[in-house]
Amino acid sequence: MTRPVTVPAAESGAGEPRPHPAWLPPQAWRPLGVRRVLVHGDGLLVDTVFAEVAQACAAHGGRVDRTGTDGASAVDPVDLVLALRDPGPLPSAVPAAVTAGPTPDGPLGDEGFLLTRVDDVTVVLADAPAGLLYGLFHLVRLGEAAHTGDHPARAHRPALRRRMLDHWDNVAVHPVMGQVERGYAGGSIFWRDGGPRGDRDRLRAYARLLAACGVNAISVNNVNVGLTEARLLTDRLDDVVDLADLLRPYGIRVHLSVTFAAPVVLGGLPTADPLDDGVRDWWESTTRRVHARIPDFGGYVVKADSEGQPGPFSYGRDHADGANLLAAALAPHGAVVHWRAFVYDHRQDWRDRTTDRARAAYDHFAPLDGRFADNVVLQVKFGPVDFQPREPVSPVIAAMPATRVAVELQVTQEYTGQQWHACYLAPWWHEVLAFRPWGPAERSVTDVLADVPGPGPHRGGDLVAVANVGDDPFWCGHPLAQANLYAFGRLAWDPGLAADAILDEWIDLTFPASTVGDPALVRETLHAVLDDSWRTYERYTAPLGVGFMVNPAGHYGPGVDGYEYSRWGTYHFADRDGVGVDRTCATGTGFAGQYPPPWSQVYESLERCPDELLLFFHHVPYSHVLHSGVTVIQHIYDTHFAGVAEVVAMRDRWTRLAGVIDQAVYDRVVERFDEQLRCATEWRDQVNTYFFRKSGVPDARGRRIH
Amino acid sequence: MTRPVTVPAAESGAGEPRPHPAWLPPQAWRPLGVRRVLVHGDGLLVDTVFAEVAQACAAHGGRVDRTGTDGASAVDPVDLVLALRDPGPLPSAVPAAVTAGPTPDGPLGDEGFLLTRVDDVTVVLADAPAGLLYGLFHLVRLGEAAHTGDHPARAHRPALRRRMLDHWDNVAVHPVMGQVERGYAGGSIFWRDGGPRGDRDRLRAYARLLAACGVNAISVNNVNVGLTEARLLTDRLDDVVDLADLLRPYGIRVHLSVTFAAPVVLGGLPTADPLDDGVRDWWESTTRRVHARIPDFGGYVVKADSEGQPGPFSYGRDHADGANLLAAALAPHGAVVHWRAFVYDHRQDWRDRTTDRARAAYDHFAPLDGRFADNVVLQVKFGPVDFQPREPVSPVIAAMPATRVAVELQVTQEYTGQQWHACYLAPWWHEVLAFRPWGPAERSVTDVLADVPGPGPHRGGDLVAVANVGDDPFWCGHPLAQANLYAFGRLAWDPGLAADAILDEWIDLTFPASTVGDPALVRETLHAVLDDSWRTYERYTAPLGVGFMVNPAGHYGPGVDGYEYSRWGTYHFADRDGVGVDRTCATGTGFAGQYPPPWSQVYESLERCPDELLLFFHHVPYSHVLHSGVTVIQHIYDTHFAGVAEVVAMRDRWTRLAGVIDQAVYDRVVERFDEQLRCATEWRDQVNTYFFRKSGVPDARGRRIH
Repeated sequence: MTRPVTVPAAESGAGEPRPHPAWLPPQAWRPLGVRRVLVHGDGLLVDTVFAEVAQACAAHGGRVDRTGTDGASAVDPVDLVLALRDPGPLPSAVPAAVTAGPTPDGPLGDEGFLLTRVDDVTVVLADAPAGLLYGLFHLVRLGEAAHTGDHPARAHRPALRRRMLDHWDNVAVHPVMGQVERGYAGGSIFWRDGGPRGDRDRLRAYARLLAACGVNAISVNNVNVGLTEARLLTDRLDDVVDLADLLRPYGIRVHLSVTFAAPVVLGGLPTADPLDDGVRDWWESTTRRVHARIPDFGGYVVKADSEGQPGPFSYGRDHADGANLLAAALAPHGAVVHWRAFVYDHRQDWRDRTTDRARAAYDHFAPLDGRFADNVVLQVKFGPVDFQPREPVSPVIAAMPATRVAVELQVTQEYTGQQWHACYLAPWWHEVLAFRPWGPAERSVTDVLADVPGPGPHRGGDLVAVANVGDDPFWCGHPLAQANLYAFGRLAWDPGLAADAILDEWIDLTFPASTVGDPALVRETLHAVLDDSWRTYERYTAPLGVGFMVNPAGHYGPGVDGYEYSRWGTYHFADRDGVGVDRTCATGTGFAGQYPPPWSQVYESLERCPDELLLFFHHVPYSHVLHSGVTVIQHIYDTHFAGVAEVVAMRDRWTRLAGVIDQAVYDRVVERFDEQLRCATEWRDQVNTYFFRKSGVPDARGRRIH
Repeated sequence: MTRPVTVPAAESGAGEPRPHPAWLPPQAWRPLGVRRVLVHGDGLLVDTVFAEVAQACAAHGGRVDRTGTDGASAVDPVDLVLALRDPGPLPSAVPAAVTAGPTPDGPLGDEGFLLTRVDDVTVVLADAPAGLLYGLFHLVRLGEAAHTGDHPARAHRPALRRRMLDHWDNVAVHPVMGQVERGYAGGSIFWRDGGPRGDRDRLRAYARLLAACGVNAISVNNVNVGLTEARLLTDRLDDVVDLADLLRPYGIRVHLSVTFAAPVVLGGLPTADPLDDGVRDWWESTTRRVHARIPDFGGYVVKADSEGQPGPFSYGRDHADGANLLAAALAPHGAVVHWRAFVYDHRQDWRDRTTDRARAAYDHFAPLDGRFADNVVLQVKFGPVDFQPREPVSPVIAAMPATRVAVELQVTQEYTGQQWHACYLAPWWHEVLAFRPWGPAERSVTDVLADVPGPGPHRGGDLVAVANVGDDPFWCGHPLAQANLYAFGRLAWDPGLAADAILDEWIDLTFPASTVGDPALVRETLHAVLDDSWRTYERYTAPLGVGFMVNPAGHYGPGVDGYEYSRWGTYHFADRDGVGVDRTCATGTGFAGQYPPPWSQVYESLERCPDELLLFFHHVPYSHVLHSGVTVIQHIYDTHFAGVAEVVAMRDRWTRLAGVIDQAVYDRVVERFDEQLRCATEWRDQVNTYFFRKSGVPDARGRRIH
């Protein structure tokens, strides 16, 4: 029944090893590659489409023709047409029925496409080359289904205009953070030892993977900008031009993280004051030079006045002054500045319970609403603290009606197991995007980002995530972490997609039925392992939303008191009687009041606050009974025992795939599960012991606590 | 009354700045430098004595003559004679009365000297050049008193034959540990960026300072031996030869830390098995080559099977096999191997309460007693754990009658404030050396080391300390930390010296009356600041001997639970009811039973155990009443408030020296006190808060606990 298989592309050849093909293995192209295809249209991205189709047909026996918009037309019968419909006319191979009606739901825009199948011909139409590219990858995703039966015409458009990955990659190796800050997949694919890595094949493969899941923007260096990285803007610009040239055929625009102090450190100016004319001129001329070399340059990403980075505060200016300075330089070129809202006091005094890091982004930015230029995108971490496995959704998202807001997710698993733990994050992101800041009947975070009109802000924005990719043969260290990268792109395209549906897509692409011994078992196993893996991770780590019980040295593994007396502003305040942070308006830091109703009231209320966020908002006795019916202390014990048991089950499930899937993938995941189990056990025992020692309450079920 | 002064040598010139003169400022030489001096004898160290005297006389107006042992004799009248008496005859300037009688207390030996003053002539006699050198520095220490009145003949001999500093200096910068592991005074004085530092002036000054306090051996590289450092033994030997040549004129022998795997990593052998003939040959020939270049090479220092270093366990051999291998290679050359007893499992499971790191050295080494070669020195950390501010004295010292034992102290303040905190350690070392393992009427640790006969071991050994010196202008980061280095040398020479008497010596030398505005105030202030500073440090850090509540990242500042769930085997087991480690035989790990009576019984007994070690040996409720009459929890609060108050007082006392002493020294110490106060406050608040949260017991005196 099962048979061992090997995905050839996972093997390494001479020189740079060929990375794992991820969700674009050759076999995924087979349904398309056996067809007679016509590609119609001109432009760089249409060239890409044609080249992809040609490669697939060469591999699988199909045939491809191309016609341009000059009117030339192929005459042979075809199974599939990918055509730009503007400027016309369409090739005659497109069935008349397709061209008759209007596009469903209005124009397709720059990136949309229309898919239909009539009279045994599958047709993808687009108004712009990028739409055709996304249509092509959609066909790959559909597989054989794209070429079977009739499909009524359906328009596909991205919900969000910019679907962006931030690479926290350093050009020069940072003495503490290494080549990639918070990177868990080896070195950078862009940089090595102070210069470009130069692995063009890998970069092209990466661009292709990103386009296939819908990503269309990348920032190529860390938001913490060192001196070497700063120079990407000026004398190292050639390196960025090269990257832009490599990524452009896949519809990806390059952005740069810049230091706010650039006029001083690069320009030799005496100040970086955003209101200084010389500074303004420097940014304008520097930005002009960048766009002269990279006409589609996306813009700047800025971490200012945050964790030691320079910013407008140094000059007595505020963040609107700072962001607008860069926005003014970028505006003539159609580019944007992503201004990160991750600003807080990282030198807090743990003795001072009135300071609350969770409040910081709102306190800093809400008063500035309306003052940001139109091409400023305020980039807000999804939660008010820092990428924890459980936080409330940031109140900033609902607080800035006159500001473009982007939500920032973290695909790299800084706080979610660092790609040693299987932790499929799409359910979590889906929950964040589906959150309705103004209550159940009102608009969601997705609606805010997608600019759906309604009460509250609707300026539109984009979705950004910190990347999880490195020079690891499996791209992400953990092969299953590829699913997170894929899911991010797909959610950015369509935030309404369900996490398990995305996982199905990823499974179909990554483990094509023709390459595995038992496709049903593979699908069932991957769902069993991944569907609930984020909640499993949550169970064995910090309880009930309190967060940040991690080892300060690297954020991996437990450190219950690791941040309890620190300057970083992340506490749990556990004592012998209880645990949690009082963030109510009545008796706490008032953070709950940063939400509009009903959430301000829900979070304020001990009775109404959801269990999973209880300790984020309230300090309660260990005997407090949750909505689930158990006490807080018993919940801690139960979830930690359960979490480890679930990891054991995940690992056991995985072993059923021995001999069924590619051996290298299998082995790597086995290795990761061994470590995940070791680490989860450590979490369980340290957290349980910590709270048992403090509370003195024994486990009601008599399990061993040390 | 007070006047600002500047010690010129503290200023920096061109190139390498001139370091602070420490306890050998020019003014300290004045009482000697105004005399008419005769130096008599031949040899390298006599040349050193002559050069030192000549320099002093040139500076202060005295005069020096020299006669050799060839019989030539000066005739001019003299105030001071420094003479080798063997071979005779002595110069006629030595009063007849001096030469008449036998030497008090027997022969002077290699390093001893006789001091007397008769008929207005001060006379230092020695039987070997090193004795004359130590006599010279003794004169400097005595100052004017050496040249006043009569002094009956008194013989001075070092109590310990080897008085050694271990430098944990890396040749190549270690990515985590830096140039000097556990160094808090800048870079290494020996090495920089992978090679010799080449600052010969500083090295000469260092050798001189060490000789002046009695140190006669140095190991010049870290006990954690990297690949670059390993090669000091072979192709980088030239670098060691240079150092030996620089240090030899001051009577200091060079030792090397070597890796047990040297035959493999340097020699290309397939094994480092200590019973392998090829390995034995390799060590013999390698050691022969070292001695051919450095005839007085002191020997090897080895950290084996410890914290990741290779050792005999890899080959199924024990530590006697390992140590004897190197000893055999060194024996023909009169050199020794210092074999460190710091062997323990650093991958412990905190859940397993039967494993006790404190037991490890005894468990590993006591069974091997009698199996070590005569030139093996078993180097034992003074306490059973790791250089904590309070531990019991290691039971290994009393457990190995047939083994040469060295006690290892830590001058570098890894766990005692890292040379940001003023912490004069001589009282602590004195307490360790005065400890009587077999009870009050029996021999002390000093007696064991000094080979005083009696019950129990008396094989003799030496005193070793990890150095605290770097390329800092004040040598040690904290100018007052110089007193620790000085005190170590003096205690190694005479372990009976009282800590405050050593401090008086150091004050007189470092702050000569002629260079300060108010000598009495300086003395009074330094005593007020330093005499009790170790106990102050103990008060504001881990309570009652429990130890290791430090931040794991660097061992500086508090981290109450920092090691509580770690693999390093250092726990306090605090819960809501109590705290401490049960190391009794009755109910605990049995460590108390490693001591001979009466200490095995004293430590075993909750009633008899000294307060300061209570939590090292017992787990007790917070309500346990100490011999001092207060409960454990109140003791924690009281000592932590007191400790910080004492730091405030120390800082205030220090500020009275503004304008009285050298400004640079003053300013540096002010800077250090600011940090000490900040850090001590952090210790106080974190420790108090931690225990308040756990115990729920309020401070009886109602002070603020967070």
